[in-house]
Amino acid sequence: MRQAQYKISIATRGKGIVEFTREVKRWVEGQGIATGLLTLYCRHTSASLLIQENADPDVQTDLLNFFEEIAPENRPYVHDTEGPDDMPAHIRAALTQTSLSIPVVKGAPALGTWQGIYLFEHRSAPHTREVVVHLLGE
Amino acid sequence: MRQAQYKISIATRGKGIVEFTREVKRWVEGQGIATGLLTLYCRHTSASLLIQENADPDVQTDLLNFFEEIAPENRPYVHDTEGPDDMPAHIRAALTQTSLSIPVVKGAPALGTWQGIYLFEHRSAPHTREVVVHLLGE
Amino acid sequence: MRQAQYKISIATRGKGIVEFTREVKRWVEGQGIATGLLTLYCRHTSASLLIQENADPDVQTDLLNFFEEIAPENRPYVHDTEGPDDMPAHIRAALTQTSLSIPVVKGAPALGTWQGIYLFEHRSAPHTREVVVHLLGE
Repeated sequence: MRQAQYKISIATRGKGIVEFTREVKRWVEGQGIATGLLTLYCRHTSASLLIQENADPDVQTDLLNFFEEIAPENRPYVHDTEGPDDMPAHIRAALTQTSLSIPVVKGAPALGTWQGIYLFEHRSAPHTREVVVHLLGE
Repeated sequence: MRQAQYKISIATRGKGIVEFTREVKRWVEGQGIATGLLTLYCRHTSASLLIQENADPDVQTDLLNFFEEIAPENRPYVHDTEGPDDMPAHIRAALTQTSLSIPVVKGAPALGTWQGIYLFEHRSAPHTREVVVHLLGE
Repeated sequence: MRQAQYKISIATRGKGIVEFTREVKRWVEGQGIATGLLTLYCRHTSASLLIQENADPDVQTDLLNFFEEIAPENRPYVHDTEGPDDMPAHIRAALTQTSLSIPVVKGAPALGTWQGIYLFEHRSAPHTREVVVHLLGE
């Protein structure tokens, strides 16, 4: 049984979701681990992780609109010193994922046909986000 | 330290939650692993995983009603080519879980007394859903 | 490769979030595992886990207000025998996390600078909640 770790830096352009499935797959494939467990961990409280459909970009538009409406910027928040987009960002992060666990089968993450791995940026300004990737198996 | 993997197929009857706690427990108990980590992974973007109360079926009714209202079908979505239930399905999947991690203690998943493991089907039509189960321990 | 498990009991004072980052860190540091995977599992369906900002307490106030509004007590629920706060508790648990996976890097959980680990109590009355902690690595 072996372990490997890796830190991915993801540059975002402000609010939106950024797919990084290919980078994760390539890294896993390079580790020579046939069977195992892959963990992704987002080191932020105003960005999060998401498994979503990677076929139709319209899905992403609707998702973003939904999260804009469910936790809108124009609500009165107590915590507003970091800008109107900050508290909604924390709420949207709480509603999605900080960590994801994906079994590795035959040397690759067991993603479904239409599943992509996304970093969900909740702040308006571009940021560099860190995702820690952990792999365990043999 | 050993690993085991297993793929569960779950037949759904359209929208609703389907408990599969017993199947998971039975499989874990058959692996002879006393201490370890169990991971469940849903290979879909319009179905998801949920740990919920398995005592009162009314909880399930209220949960379903809540998700119907929070991401309703009669909202205007850009992505609507796969039917009015498709985009709400993606949103509801984003709000719940794609993966679950459960420690294994004394040969069984460390579920609380009232916790059950559920597949949450978000589409109106019946589907066959795949959950990859991974166990690691000794 | 080694494993360690630990059960944390958290006394809550009713609705609110309780940070237990320090206790988790201290336990992990005492295990002598440099590289690994940490899993936290909440054994309840009316309390959940959350990674959130630990810098400004106002964030917690806004988070609580948000969850009060999105799944309010004064909605008609079918499941109401355990009090008006019970069904909203199940919904809020479904919208947040039952399990969290955090890689361990250099002997410590790979939390971001502002990230804290919280138990989210959704019931009005004080409870004692159990979180199972699992560590795997070497």
